[in-house]
Amino acid sequence: MRHILEVLSEGSDILTNALDRYLNIIVNQTLPKTRVKPQENVSEPWKTNKNFVGYLDTLDIILMEPCKHRELPDALMTEQYVLNITSEHAVNKLSAQTVWGILRGLETFLQLLYPTADEALHINCTSIFDYPRYQHRGVLVDTRHYIPVSKLLKMLDALSYNKLNVFHWHITDDQSFLYISKTYPELSQQGAYLLTYVYTQQDVAQIINYAAARGIRVIAEFDTSGHTRSWGEAFPELLSPCYRNNVPTGQYGLVDPTNNFTYEFMENLLTEVVDVFPDNVLHLGADEVEFECWQSNPGITAFMQTYNISSYVKLKSYYIQKIIDMSDKLNVTSIVWEEVFTNGVTNSGFQTLLSSCWYLDNLSGGGDGTKYYDCEPTDFNGNDEQKKLVIGGEACMWGEVVNEYNIESRMWPTASAAAEKLWSVKGVDPSSQAGHRLEEHTCRMNKRGIGTQPPNGPGFCEL
Amino acid sequence: MRHILEVLSEGSDILTNALDRYLNIIVNQTLPKTRVKPQENVSEPWKTNKNFVGYLDTLDIILMEPCKHRELPDALMTEQYVLNITSEHAVNKLSAQTVWGILRGLETFLQLLYPTADEALHINCTSIFDYPRYQHRGVLVDTRHYIPVSKLLKMLDALSYNKLNVFHWHITDDQSFLYISKTYPELSQQGAYLLTYVYTQQDVAQIINYAAARGIRVIAEFDTSGHTRSWGEAFPELLSPCYRNNVPTGQYGLVDPTNNFTYEFMENLLTEVVDVFPDNVLHLGADEVEFECWQSNPGITAFMQTYNISSYVKLKSYYIQKIIDMSDKLNVTSIVWEEVFTNGVTNSGFQTLLSSCWYLDNLSGGGDGTKYYDCEPTDFNGNDEQKKLVIGGEACMWGEVVNEYNIESRMWPTASAAAEKLWSVKGVDPSSQAGHRLEEHTCRMNKRGIGTQPPNGPGFCEL
Repeated sequence: MRHILEVLSEGSDILTNALDRYLNIIVNQTLPKTRVKPQENVSEPWKTNKNFVGYLDTLDIILMEPCKHRELPDALMTEQYVLNITSEHAVNKLSAQTVWGILRGLETFLQLLYPTADEALHINCTSIFDYPRYQHRGVLVDTRHYIPVSKLLKMLDALSYNKLNVFHWHITDDQSFLYISKTYPELSQQGAYLLTYVYTQQDVAQIINYAAARGIRVIAEFDTSGHTRSWGEAFPELLSPCYRNNVPTGQYGLVDPTNNFTYEFMENLLTEVVDVFPDNVLHLGADEVEFECWQSNPGITAFMQTYNISSYVKLKSYYIQKIIDMSDKLNVTSIVWEEVFTNGVTNSGFQTLLSSCWYLDNLSGGGDGTKYYDCEPTDFNGNDEQKKLVIGGEACMWGEVVNEYNIESRMWPTASAAAEKLWSVKGVDPSSQAGHRLEEHTCRMNKRGIGTQPPNGPGFCEL
Repeated sequence: MRHILEVLSEGSDILTNALDRYLNIIVNQTLPKTRVKPQENVSEPWKTNKNFVGYLDTLDIILMEPCKHRELPDALMTEQYVLNITSEHAVNKLSAQTVWGILRGLETFLQLLYPTADEALHINCTSIFDYPRYQHRGVLVDTRHYIPVSKLLKMLDALSYNKLNVFHWHITDDQSFLYISKTYPELSQQGAYLLTYVYTQQDVAQIINYAAARGIRVIAEFDTSGHTRSWGEAFPELLSPCYRNNVPTGQYGLVDPTNNFTYEFMENLLTEVVDVFPDNVLHLGADEVEFECWQSNPGITAFMQTYNISSYVKLKSYYIQKIIDMSDKLNVTSIVWEEVFTNGVTNSGFQTLLSSCWYLDNLSGGGDGTKYYDCEPTDFNGNDEQKKLVIGGEACMWGEVVNEYNIESRMWPTASAAAEKLWSVKGVDPSSQAGHRLEEHTCRMNKRGIGTQPPNGPGFCEL
């Protein structure tokens, strides 16, 4: 390959940056001693190989619809691309309607390059028309231990190497509130582990921009009505006091759904969040709610009688529905965890994301990366209409036992298996045959600086 | 603390280096902005604290038996020490018979220092007489994926922070032979994953010296008769050919115990190993033996008939006993895995190491560090005499799913629990109360650069 990447069409910053980035990977990380440009006095042993048809001098990048919109990926982005690698004198090109398709095609192009012992980079002639099976291909990352921004940026690189397009940021939980709110700075001042274990507005903007440059959406999750202990550090009135024998215990439970302050607060906070996180999807959480505290609280009981709410599940529905309505008014689409659906809060007909079989914290012994291939997003009881409502899925890196030191090796290459299942056509490869490919992709990530656990047990990467 | 460590007695290199090392940790890693020496114009708010009795100006280090022997730790080393921290005008001292005791006492001294918000380092007055419950306190590290030397050195640092004194190096296995033998260089040339995934003589010497400087013995394990597939790459005649219907299948099984070459080879190799690894203990492995291949081999059957060996277990015993005898002649003590004992190979009355409840690869969800406190080395059916034969234990980091990227976070702080159980008196603390201490020690290791997984789930380290 003499000259590597040449842009024909009007470029965009995202495209220019992506070309720089991938050129750097080719030069520095694909083959340790790659000669990008053969020198005059160096032999070219590959020329005698009967399969040699010529040098790939140029790859034309053709962006068919150059950047009409502001350059942020969204739920409707098109990612398809066409990649043609032909013999020497024909045109080698990567074309796509959108910059997002070019990004995916560049990743494929790099994955097709293979170094050989003669220190050349080879690529086979090929013609590829490719697009993802699912629109929403994400990872949930729970940062409750505080994961440094530099680690999150590196994780976004890894997402792009796996053609994942959603970073679902679980940015608050019982133990820590990590987002510095402009409206309510007390939330992190009092709810974070430390004043340094937080994400500033600048951090968030940097992460959103870095993700966008890689075709990755950032979807924030501000999880209520449970998992809000840290919110209560600054705003105890947000939470429902717990009682024993009609006397307050000093403990707090779920968000207090009877209090006007709760809804004013949530509206102010979500208004800010929708402004700061430009994606038009917002995650409202609503998982794992324990009702004991509500049950003990006489004010809650009175409220339920007044409003004729016959169960605590319905009281949760009452609260969540108000938050969903709030999100609707803010012109964002809301996502909630499945139990809101199974508890009857939402109506059927909603779009669905699969994550339950891709919980990365279920590590068992490790070296079991291929088991994540056994997860098929449409394997549930439902008719074709219902299965069409599945728009994708997420690999979930819950954070109870994950910190800055082990998050990278625990996520990869396990999340790669989910990524491939979400991109490729159904049933493309059973888990029994995926091991070698996962091994190869792991080595590719290692060369690019991503520290992985071993995908399948013993094994090694060729240098 | 005005002047920190001052050596009174005749120093040794080990002592001098340890003082440099620990002084560096105090200055750079114990408190981010510690003022080692208060400046004239800086207020000293701690002086008004009613518990303030003065500065710790000097810690005298008293080595009572200065370095009579060559300075390598061994199975009989003494590690006890006395540490006195008193009020300002009395003598503050750390004394021990041996340099190994000084090393352990220095670690304790550092652990007693605690930073406070006023940016001072504090220490409480105390008087400590301390020594380990068990002589042998180790970790097994299985390097089959190849762990870079720099990572192993860092691991030795971590061992010293936990007062562990044995690095049991599982340096060969089925998949790779990582030691470059002077006698049989073909072993790693053909049996390693890559020619760069090996440990040179210089690497081994560096590791042994680095360990010795921290009071850590390096015990090599050259595991036979199973787990030797990699040995067979260069020396197939070492292994027993497998047969089907009396025809060789081309596969190889366990070491061939009928072949004189096997014993000549092992004698040459072990003679070298005993020379390269100065510790007078050698691990011979002998675990997890599958007999199918021996059973299929007519030569093995004929040999057993000739020598009146009535079972495959006894044939294994025949082989292992010859290797143990070989080790005896080389004047080293041999260690074998427990099943050799339970299979009746060795006689009773042998010293015992516990490891079964400290297998670090049994991770389950993680965040379960305290469960390793539930392991008591004498909790087995046996009389007092038998229990006295327990000389210690090892936390085992088996390597199937562990590589350079996840070994550190998977080992720590889990191995710290085993380390404390092996040092402290029996029953000192149940697992239910160990969590906070494990958390504190994890933060201490983090500050010193050791990347750990979270010990107990959510939580954080004060900076």
